[in-house]
Amino acid sequence: MDLAKRRGFFWPSYEIYGGVAGFYDLGPLGTMLKNNIVNLWRKYFVLKHQDMVVEIETPIIAPEVVLRASGHLEHFTDPIVECLKCGRKYRADHLIEEQLKVKVEGLRGDELTKIIRESNLRCPSCGGELSKVMEFNLLFRTTIGPYSSDVGYLRPEAAQGMFTAFKRVYVALRERLPLGIAQIGRVARNEISPRQGMVRLREFTIMEVEFFHNPESDEPPWDRFSGKLRILPAELRARGEERPIEVDVNEAVTEGLIKSKWLGYWMCVARDFVHELGVDYGEMYFEEKMPYERAHYSVQTFDQLVRVSRWGWIEVSGHAYRTDYDLRRHMEFSGQDLTVFKPYPEPKLVEVKRVVVDRALLGRVLGGSLKELEEVLRKLRAEDVEKLLATGSGEVEVGGFRVPREAIRVVKEVEKASGVRIIPHVAEPSFGAERLVLVVLDKAYTEEGGRVVLRIPKAIAPIKVAVFPLVEREELISLAKRIYWELVDRGFTVLYDESGSIGRRYARADEIGVPFAITVDFQSLEDGTVTIRDRDTRQQVRVKIGELPNQLRGLLEG
Amino acid sequence: MDLAKRRGFFWPSYEIYGGVAGFYDLGPLGTMLKNNIVNLWRKYFVLKHQDMVVEIETPIIAPEVVLRASGHLEHFTDPIVECLKCGRKYRADHLIEEQLKVKVEGLRGDELTKIIRESNLRCPSCGGELSKVMEFNLLFRTTIGPYSSDVGYLRPEAAQGMFTAFKRVYVALRERLPLGIAQIGRVARNEISPRQGMVRLREFTIMEVEFFHNPESDEPPWDRFSGKLRILPAELRARGEERPIEVDVNEAVTEGLIKSKWLGYWMCVARDFVHELGVDYGEMYFEEKMPYERAHYSVQTFDQLVRVSRWGWIEVSGHAYRTDYDLRRHMEFSGQDLTVFKPYPEPKLVEVKRVVVDRALLGRVLGGSLKELEEVLRKLRAEDVEKLLATGSGEVEVGGFRVPREAIRVVKEVEKASGVRIIPHVAEPSFGAERLVLVVLDKAYTEEGGRVVLRIPKAIAPIKVAVFPLVEREELISLAKRIYWELVDRGFTVLYDESGSIGRRYARADEIGVPFAITVDFQSLEDGTVTIRDRDTRQQVRVKIGELPNQLRGLLEG
Repeated sequence: MDLAKRRGFFWPSYEIYGGVAGFYDLGPLGTMLKNNIVNLWRKYFVLKHQDMVVEIETPIIAPEVVLRASGHLEHFTDPIVECLKCGRKYRADHLIEEQLKVKVEGLRGDELTKIIRESNLRCPSCGGELSKVMEFNLLFRTTIGPYSSDVGYLRPEAAQGMFTAFKRVYVALRERLPLGIAQIGRVARNEISPRQGMVRLREFTIMEVEFFHNPESDEPPWDRFSGKLRILPAELRARGEERPIEVDVNEAVTEGLIKSKWLGYWMCVARDFVHELGVDYGEMYFEEKMPYERAHYSVQTFDQLVRVSRWGWIEVSGHAYRTDYDLRRHMEFSGQDLTVFKPYPEPKLVEVKRVVVDRALLGRVLGGSLKELEEVLRKLRAEDVEKLLATGSGEVEVGGFRVPREAIRVVKEVEKASGVRIIPHVAEPSFGAERLVLVVLDKAYTEEGGRVVLRIPKAIAPIKVAVFPLVEREELISLAKRIYWELVDRGFTVLYDESGSIGRRYARADEIGVPFAITVDFQSLEDGTVTIRDRDTRQQVRVKIGELPNQLRGLLEG
Repeated sequence: MDLAKRRGFFWPSYEIYGGVAGFYDLGPLGTMLKNNIVNLWRKYFVLKHQDMVVEIETPIIAPEVVLRASGHLEHFTDPIVECLKCGRKYRADHLIEEQLKVKVEGLRGDELTKIIRESNLRCPSCGGELSKVMEFNLLFRTTIGPYSSDVGYLRPEAAQGMFTAFKRVYVALRERLPLGIAQIGRVARNEISPRQGMVRLREFTIMEVEFFHNPESDEPPWDRFSGKLRILPAELRARGEERPIEVDVNEAVTEGLIKSKWLGYWMCVARDFVHELGVDYGEMYFEEKMPYERAHYSVQTFDQLVRVSRWGWIEVSGHAYRTDYDLRRHMEFSGQDLTVFKPYPEPKLVEVKRVVVDRALLGRVLGGSLKELEEVLRKLRAEDVEKLLATGSGEVEVGGFRVPREAIRVVKEVEKASGVRIIPHVAEPSFGAERLVLVVLDKAYTEEGGRVVLRIPKAIAPIKVAVFPLVEREELISLAKRIYWELVDRGFTVLYDESGSIGRRYARADEIGVPFAITVDFQSLEDGTVTIRDRDTRQQVRVKIGELPNQLRGLLEG
């Protein structure tokens, strides 16, 4: 952490004002590293899949209706208690876990309140009595425009921008499924009291794909990514197991351990992506979340965990099978049709359910409101109407109207269909970029004889090459600077350093992970060659100055 | 605009909910184009200046104190009136200008109110009476964490993150000036009622450099960028002149037309960057803002204007000479020292002003408060104390204390100094990325014989190459797909299209600006060559399939 601050990878934001918990700046090296990680992510999740994945960019601010539809207004909360004496606020579950050393994850607010009351937990700061546990919504709230009723929120995930734009993208791309929509951008989560520095941020860069597909038919391109996954299923966790098992992704899907083949596919992509960041396969696995740990929109979620030296196992990505939850909700809240038409290979006879109403009877009961009721019914699926009817006996309530049960029926009909309208299902891999910066630095950090060497994978190292004159002599400096500018012009990120002994300069470059250091020495003046030193092996080779760009490119690509 | 929506460049956000004014999504092609523009900006402003400019990334959410210090809480406002009958709100100056056809820019709120009263302006919607004009703050307001008193705002510019982190970056980079800190990221401005679609957004991507320098000594590298600038000075505008003059940047600086050489330097960089986006030098100029048009932090501002077919002249960048305003304000509000030490080549004798107090006299007047007063004085510059003393006669007020004038004196002393502490000055070039997307599309749009060709500069075209089988024949399709994947693996963005006539496919590719189209025909099967067609010349050349990646790279780089 000292190195990160001192050399400019990251530091707490607004330090001159004492900082604000949960906010970090990325410094010059941190920003370069993050940008390289983002581009590598883009390579794996977008470019290598450009036959079916596209990237879009949508706003951070969303109007209230979007986050009401998505379920976040209702569900995106953490439990909170307030001290009735000093007014301090605490995250209730964390307070209980810290004070009582018990696990309370998944308990409801009233259950947490009960524990607080029974254990007579008090405010850790002033000893005052604690309020009952309330739900604190983690959305940052604001107002759009001059009217205070136009409430908006900062998005807690990029996903909703992709769901609300789905139809537009689908049509622009000539109505093909499967269709992945990717987005890289800022999100914000108003954590109650974030600790853990860079691990738990209130604002961070998310990289996610909403992968829209027909769960019945679309098949992943297993020839690109497949193979073994280390997973820890919820069922095993429930039995106290803490070690992951290794399974072939296809078997895991077939056996139902992974409930969506696309979820499994993107987990394979995530595995290889994180591996390229410098994480051994043995130091990562996918932990299935327990039902009470999952977000409200997911029927199955795996977290990709990576072991780092400072925090143990931390989550670097989440893989949620969101089914058709989000599109369905947005259809309900917007009244728009977000289904897609899937033609059959050839027309076939299908059984469909249809809602039939007794208009004469309903007209007598409802009078002029009949039209309104019909409007409501049109928006419901026949299956939902069936369920509704099953609930009442003499009368049922539909859209605020009480009507006789026998006035509405769901009938089955057979018709010839050339295809079917479906709501696509969604598998979602989702990463936090800043946390990957941490992981890369943690994995790269090595100490050798009291010196730090950051063995950042060469392809994502912030600065690719250093240029040094062997000593501070004018001819050497002038040649070194010429080489510096030559490499800058060729698009390299280059460090020029002429101060201190050559050993110290190598050390300074190693400390920030520069893969290659070029030294201009007296021989350079004679024969136009320089040495290239490899950060990891410390081996040096001599090359012609004119061949540097190509040599370096070759070395960087391994 | 139709093309932009239909082919997926951009569209209004949250369309399924009727949209929200001032918010746009970038679609797949728009996002690629924007990313290419961002990278080109990075090349000009960061990579080509990597000896003195670094990029960082700071949060979008800022605590209140930061925006109080920056002056935005006080000054970042627009005038607003409310209808006292229906409650509708209007931007006061726009309402007056639309209704009365007069220019009112720069008038104060009370002056606008007077015009409304005297002209008996009423609510355009209901005819109701209008309130007096108030100032509406354009910052999106929110709360950080669970305490409602912890107010935060979305940043309206990226700049403040760079100012608050300045010292940290300066130290990490071994305390050198000049030092540019660049940032690319989202900002938000809560416009009262944005119109003009993509031109006036409430949320957009800013790309800016805060260039910290010593105005006395640091000299721009004129060998990299210099030459002629078309500018329209405020003085000429005041005289009704609307045509820019062409000046050499060095002369403009020498003659005082441009008040900072670094401001002029970055305007040259901006000129060439925007030119590479496809804008002729004759279709852009820099308009100096009148004093009442400038932001509160700037002593001189130029807007870079570009002529587009749809909106006429629009602003694509702003160039503000912020002096030491921001660092000075953050020093005052944070109490931290943000000065930098500039050593002299050799120690020299300098005259310094020093504040001397008569402690005996003040002790009698103030008693125990003397210490407090001394604390206040320590934070003031001697020059400021001098000014203060000049205001009073018998007594003066200093930090809330009234003290006898003769108890405080400013004396001049000569001392030997090895250097001086200065507050760096700042020149700031600032761009909006989405607006540049618009400009590029506007400039690229051409119609030829009823067909649209987007002549996007090849280096920033979203999709670089299209691959077509001449007809839908299995051997051709299979070879075309092999080429597609080969190019994807080499990092190209590629479009594969096999449906419809080859002419229609060329047209579809032209319409989204794909620079090169490869066609696989029957000759390809025989001799392993394909044709490459140039979007702009429509000329075709035949090349060996194996040479495609290098050929394309060469063609793209011109």
